[in-house]
Amino acid sequence: MTGSPSTPTTYAPTPRTTGSRARERMAYDRELVHSILDEGFLCHLAFVRDGAPVVLPTLYARVGERLYVHGSTGSRPLREAGQDSGMPVCVTVTHLDGLVLAKSTFHHSVNYRSVVVHGRAHQVTDHEERLMALDAIVDSAVPGRAEDSRRANAKELAATAVVRVDLEEVSAKSRAGGPSEEPEDLELPYWSGVLPVSPVYGTPIPADDLAPGTPLPDYLTAR
Amino acid sequence: MTGSPSTPTTYAPTPRTTGSRARERMAYDRELVHSILDEGFLCHLAFVRDGAPVVLPTLYARVGERLYVHGSTGSRPLREAGQDSGMPVCVTVTHLDGLVLAKSTFHHSVNYRSVVVHGRAHQVTDHEERLMALDAIVDSAVPGRAEDSRRANAKELAATAVVRVDLEEVSAKSRAGGPSEEPEDLELPYWSGVLPVSPVYGTPIPADDLAPGTPLPDYLTAR
Repeated sequence: MTGSPSTPTTYAPTPRTTGSRARERMAYDRELVHSILDEGFLCHLAFVRDGAPVVLPTLYARVGERLYVHGSTGSRPLREAGQDSGMPVCVTVTHLDGLVLAKSTFHHSVNYRSVVVHGRAHQVTDHEERLMALDAIVDSAVPGRAEDSRRANAKELAATAVVRVDLEEVSAKSRAGGPSEEPEDLELPYWSGVLPVSPVYGTPIPADDLAPGTPLPDYLTAR
Repeated sequence: MTGSPSTPTTYAPTPRTTGSRARERMAYDRELVHSILDEGFLCHLAFVRDGAPVVLPTLYARVGERLYVHGSTGSRPLREAGQDSGMPVCVTVTHLDGLVLAKSTFHHSVNYRSVVVHGRAHQVTDHEERLMALDAIVDSAVPGRAEDSRRANAKELAATAVVRVDLEEVSAKSRAGGPSEEPEDLELPYWSGVLPVSPVYGTPIPADDLAPGTPLPDYLTAR
């Protein structure tokens, strides 16, 4: 869906994606937004309930200009997304890349890349789109896994809510590089720099009930 | 502040911390909540603006029964927390521990530990509490760092907003262990189990302007 002649290379900024400060860290480039979203699979989904905010972690996948999130049909927020107008949501994806240690506590910071999506969550009712989205969510976390597992049956599909949020009002924000310093602080004796941090996968742990000798699939050995 | 005779060992559940499903994964134990909060330093803070939810990543620290978050005094949400009644917020901290691969896509899941705090953000105006909170936020990410850096001066303090959220309406949620399976799926040939994931720190990168020979502090070598 991207790269078509009609798709602009950037998302149009809006008042709520413009930010009140640190605007130099904001970006609207579509490819950058996609790359940040595609690197992750866990988002924080916020909605309003009884006038108060709620934010919950959940899995997602990006397919073209849509984010998909799934859950139980018994889940309150996903039920509310079933209304025609959709449910106002904000979806944020954050990758932490490092801790930035400056000479002063004030200039301590983190290196990160994040995307914030403002929009409405809509129930996905089309059967094919639901199947595609569920595969995409599994593959978002473990690429190649969806086709190497049993797909949802009718009963499971009936118990699963799939919602989508269109990527229209979107911004990326990031920080990279070493600490900012006040010039007069440079002589201070404290160490300064960046402590990198990244998620690392461990050795896969077979399930207790896995038949002995079941080979580890390539998509897990490569991580 | 914890462990005093008047502090119950659990947070009292409320309608919005009870959850609509998967209640077996919910917990209100104070020590568990504290341990999840203390393991992290990056939260997702949600608030409502013009009727719509907003969720942003930010640093935090727990001190006793309070969470502290800081930011620029120019930041809109932190300014709004300056109102007497505070600003309704939800703060969520999530640790991802593993990807759970079941035989069926339906039973795919993640292992995680999360805490959700519902409450109101209040500006911290007391000078000593502000200083303590700023140190705590630095030490939350890098224990021992606050005292090994230049503390904020008057100008920097004036530019920094510190807000607190009291830990009153709080729940923890977690999943651990291997996949759940439908009995009839156990014969399927797919690998099943858990792919562990955790944040890992890399080799510290000195700042370009750091004086050669500045020793790496113990609190960084130990990570």
